[in-house]
Amino acid sequence: MASLREFQNLMARIYLAKDSKRGPEGTYKWLKEEVDELGEAMRENDKEALEDEFADVIAWLASLANVLEVDLENVAFKKYNNCCPKCRSIPCQCQCKP
Amino acid sequence: MASLREFQNLMARIYLAKDSKRGPEGTYKWLKEEVDELGEAMRENDKEALEDEFADVIAWLASLANVLEVDLENVAFKKYNNCCPKCRSIPCQCQCKP
Repeated sequence: MASLREFQNLMARIYLAKDSKRGPEGTYKWLKEEVDELGEAMRENDKEALEDEFADVIAWLASLANVLEVDLENVAFKKYNNCCPKCRSIPCQCQCKP
Repeated sequence: MASLREFQNLMARIYLAKDSKRGPEGTYKWLKEEVDELGEAMRENDKEALEDEFADVIAWLASLANVLEVDLENVAFKKYNNCCPKCRSIPCQCQCKP
Protein backbone atom coordinates (compact mmCIF):
# COMPACT_ATOMS: atom_id res chain seq x y z
CA MET A 1 0.00 0.00 0.00
CA ALA A 2 1.41 3.36 -1.01
CA SER A 3 -0.06 6.71 -0.20
CA LEU A 4 -1.33 9.21 -2.70
CA ARG A 5 1.09 11.71 -1.15
CA GLU A 6 4.00 9.34 -1.83
CA PHE A 7 2.97 9.17 -5.48
CA GLN A 8 2.68 12.94 -5.75
CA ASN A 9 6.09 13.32 -4.09
CA LEU A 10 7.57 10.78 -6.50
CA MET A 11 6.21 12.80 -9.42
CA ALA A 12 7.84 15.91 -7.90
CA ARG A 13 11.21 14.16 -7.64
CA ILE A 14 11.01 12.96 -11.25
CA TYR A 15 9.28 15.88 -12.96
CA LEU A 16 8.90 19.04 -10.86
CA ALA A 17 11.91 20.78 -12.39
CA LYS A 18 10.43 20.33 -15.89
CA ASP A 19 6.84 20.89 -14.72
CA SER A 20 7.76 24.21 -13.07
CA LYS A 21 9.50 25.42 -16.21
CA ARG A 22 6.44 24.48 -18.30
CA GLY A 23 4.03 26.07 -15.79
CA PRO A 24 0.39 25.35 -14.89
CA GLU A 25 -1.20 26.03 -18.31
CA GLY A 26 1.22 23.83 -20.23
CA THR A 27 0.97 21.07 -17.64
CA TYR A 28 -2.84 21.24 -17.75
CA LYS A 29 -2.65 20.89 -21.54
CA TRP A 30 -0.77 17.60 -21.15
CA LEU A 31 -3.29 16.37 -18.56
CA LYS A 32 -6.09 17.01 -21.08
CA GLU A 33 -4.17 15.15 -23.77
CA GLU A 34 -3.67 12.15 -21.48
CA VAL A 35 -7.39 12.11 -20.61
CA ASP A 36 -8.12 12.01 -24.36
CA GLU A 37 -5.66 9.12 -24.76
CA LEU A 38 -7.43 7.30 -21.90
CA GLY A 39 -10.68 7.67 -23.85
CA GLU A 40 -9.02 6.21 -26.95
CA ALA A 41 -7.63 3.26 -24.95
CA MET A 42 -11.17 2.58 -23.65
CA ARG A 43 -12.42 2.27 -27.22
CA GLU A 44 -9.52 -0.01 -28.23
CA ASN A 45 -10.39 -2.58 -25.56
CA ASP A 46 -6.70 -3.23 -24.76
CA LYS A 47 -6.31 -3.71 -21.00
CA GLU A 48 -2.56 -3.06 -20.94
CA ALA A 49 -2.89 0.20 -22.90
CA LEU A 50 -5.81 1.17 -20.67
CA GLU A 51 -3.75 0.65 -17.49
CA ASP A 52 -0.87 2.61 -19.03
CA GLU A 53 -3.16 5.58 -19.75
CA PHE A 54 -4.67 5.52 -16.24
CA ALA A 55 -1.09 5.72 -14.90
CA ASP A 56 -0.37 8.69 -17.18
CA VAL A 57 -3.54 10.58 -16.21
CA ILE A 58 -2.84 10.28 -12.49
CA ALA A 59 0.83 11.18 -13.12
CA TRP A 60 -0.07 14.40 -14.95
CA LEU A 61 -2.75 15.20 -12.37
CA ALA A 62 -0.09 14.87 -9.66
CA SER A 63 2.32 17.00 -11.73
CA LEU A 64 -0.30 19.72 -12.07
CA ALA A 65 -1.03 19.55 -8.33
CA ASN A 66 2.69 19.92 -7.66
CA VAL A 67 2.98 23.00 -9.87
CA LEU A 68 -0.09 24.55 -8.18
CA GLU A 69 1.01 23.45 -4.68
CA VAL A 70 -2.11 21.39 -4.01
CA ASP A 71 -1.90 18.27 -1.79
CA LEU A 72 -4.01 15.73 -3.69
CA GLU A 73 -4.35 13.30 -0.77
CA ASN A 74 -5.45 16.06 1.56
CA VAL A 75 -8.06 17.57 -0.78
CA ALA A 76 -9.41 14.18 -1.90
CA PHE A 77 -10.05 12.80 1.61
CA LYS A 78 -11.20 16.20 2.88
CA LYS A 79 -14.01 16.41 0.30
CA TYR A 80 -14.84 12.68 0.19
CA ASN A 81 -14.84 12.15 3.94
CA ASN A 82 -16.42 8.69 4.19
CA CYS A 83 -19.62 9.73 2.42
CA CYS A 84 -20.93 11.58 -0.61
CA PRO A 85 -20.23 15.29 0.01
CA LYS A 86 -23.68 16.20 -1.34
CA CYS A 87 -26.16 13.74 0.24
CA ARG A 88 -23.86 12.67 3.13
CA SER A 89 -24.84 9.03 2.48
CA ILE A 90 -22.81 5.92 1.72
CA PRO A 91 -23.69 4.65 -0.81
CA CYS A 92 -24.62 7.93 -2.50
CA GLN A 93 -28.38 8.61 -2.70
CA CYS A 94 -28.17 11.76 -4.85
CA GLN A 95 -30.59 12.00 -7.74
CA CYS A 96 -28.21 14.21 -9.74
CA LYS A 97 -25.41 13.01 -12.06
CA PRO A 98 -27.15 9.82 -13.21
CA MET B 1 -1.23 9.04 5.17
CA ALA B 2 -3.87 7.23 3.16
CA SER B 3 -3.30 4.96 0.23
CA LEU B 4 -4.51 5.51 -3.29
CA ARG B 5 -6.19 2.09 -3.03
CA GLU B 6 -8.10 3.23 0.06
CA PHE B 7 -9.39 6.24 -1.85
CA GLN B 8 -10.43 4.11 -4.82
CA ASN B 9 -12.18 1.67 -2.45
CA LEU B 10 -13.94 4.56 -0.74
CA MET B 11 -15.19 5.77 -4.14
CA ALA B 12 -16.48 2.23 -4.80
CA ARG B 13 -18.37 2.16 -1.50
CA ILE B 14 -19.95 5.56 -2.18
CA TYR B 15 -20.49 5.42 -5.95
CA LEU B 16 -19.92 2.02 -7.59
CA ALA B 17 -23.62 1.12 -7.69
CA LYS B 18 -24.38 4.33 -9.62
CA ASP B 19 -21.14 4.20 -11.62
CA SER B 20 -21.87 0.65 -12.81
CA LYS B 21 -25.37 1.60 -13.92
CA ARG B 22 -23.98 4.59 -15.83
CA GLY B 23 -21.17 2.52 -17.38
CA PRO B 24 -17.66 3.42 -18.61
CA GLU B 25 -18.64 5.87 -21.37
CA GLY B 26 -20.94 7.93 -19.15
CA THR B 27 -18.43 7.91 -16.30
CA TYR B 28 -15.65 9.01 -18.68
CA LYS B 29 -17.89 11.88 -19.82
CA TRP B 30 -18.12 13.13 -16.22
CA LEU B 31 -14.34 12.81 -15.80
CA LYS B 32 -13.87 15.04 -18.88
CA GLU B 33 -16.32 17.57 -17.48
CA GLU B 34 -14.49 17.68 -14.15
CA VAL B 35 -11.15 18.21 -15.95
CA ASP B 36 -12.75 21.16 -17.78
CA GLU B 37 -13.97 22.56 -14.44
CA LEU B 38 -10.44 22.19 -13.04
CA GLY B 39 -9.20 24.30 -15.97
CA GLU B 40 -11.83 26.96 -15.18
CA ALA B 41 -10.86 26.99 -11.49
CA MET B 42 -7.21 27.53 -12.54
CA ARG B 43 -8.22 30.65 -14.45
CA GLU B 44 -10.33 31.97 -11.54
CA ASN B 45 -7.36 31.95 -9.17
CA ASP B 46 -9.52 30.70 -6.25
CA LYS B 47 -7.49 28.21 -4.20
CA GLU B 48 -10.51 26.65 -2.45
CA ALA B 49 -12.36 26.09 -5.75
CA LEU B 50 -9.15 24.73 -7.25
CA GLU B 51 -8.72 22.19 -4.43
CA ASP B 52 -12.37 21.18 -4.77
CA GLU B 53 -11.93 20.50 -8.49
CA PHE B 54 -8.74 18.48 -7.93
CA ALA B 55 -10.75 16.33 -5.49
CA ASP B 56 -13.48 15.85 -8.08
CA VAL B 57 -11.07 14.90 -10.87
CA ILE B 58 -9.37 12.23 -8.79
CA ALA B 59 -12.79 11.02 -7.56
CA TRP B 60 -14.11 10.56 -11.10
CA LEU B 61 -10.81 8.99 -12.21
CA ALA B 62 -11.18 6.48 -9.34
CA SER B 63 -14.83 5.89 -10.29
CA LEU B 64 -13.85 5.18 -13.89
CA ALA B 65 -11.06 2.85 -12.71
CA ASN B 66 -13.62 1.02 -10.54
CA VAL B 67 -16.02 0.55 -13.45
CA LEU B 68 -13.18 -0.74 -15.66
CA GLU B 69 -11.64 -2.84 -12.85
CA VAL B 70 -8.28 -1.09 -12.92
CA ASP B 71 -6.23 -0.76 -9.71
CA LEU B 72 -4.97 2.84 -9.87
CA GLU B 73 -2.31 2.41 -7.18
CA ASN B 74 -0.94 -0.68 -8.86
CA VAL B 75 -0.76 0.79 -12.37
CA ALA B 76 0.63 4.15 -11.18
CA PHE B 77 3.54 2.72 -9.18
CA LYS B 78 4.14 -0.01 -11.78
CA LYS B 79 4.71 2.53 -14.56
CA TYR B 80 6.39 5.23 -12.43
CA ASN B 81 8.73 2.88 -10.57
CA ASN B 82 11.10 5.38 -8.91
CA CYS B 83 12.18 6.94 -12.21
CA CYS B 84 10.87 8.31 -15.48
CA PRO B 85 9.60 5.29 -17.49
CA LYS B 86 11.19 6.70 -20.67
CA CYS B 87 14.70 7.86 -19.72
CA ARG B 88 14.94 5.81 -16.49
CA SER B 89 16.40 8.86 -14.71
CA ILE B 90 15.35 10.79 -11.63
CA PRO B 91 14.89 13.66 -12.22
CA CYS B 92 13.67 13.06 -15.77
CA GLN B 93 16.20 13.88 -18.50
CA CYS B 94 13.87 13.36 -21.49
CA GLN B 95 13.98 15.98 -24.20
CA CYS B 96 10.36 15.31 -25.20
CA LYS B 97 7.24 16.89 -23.62
CA PRO B 98 8.87 20.25 -22.79
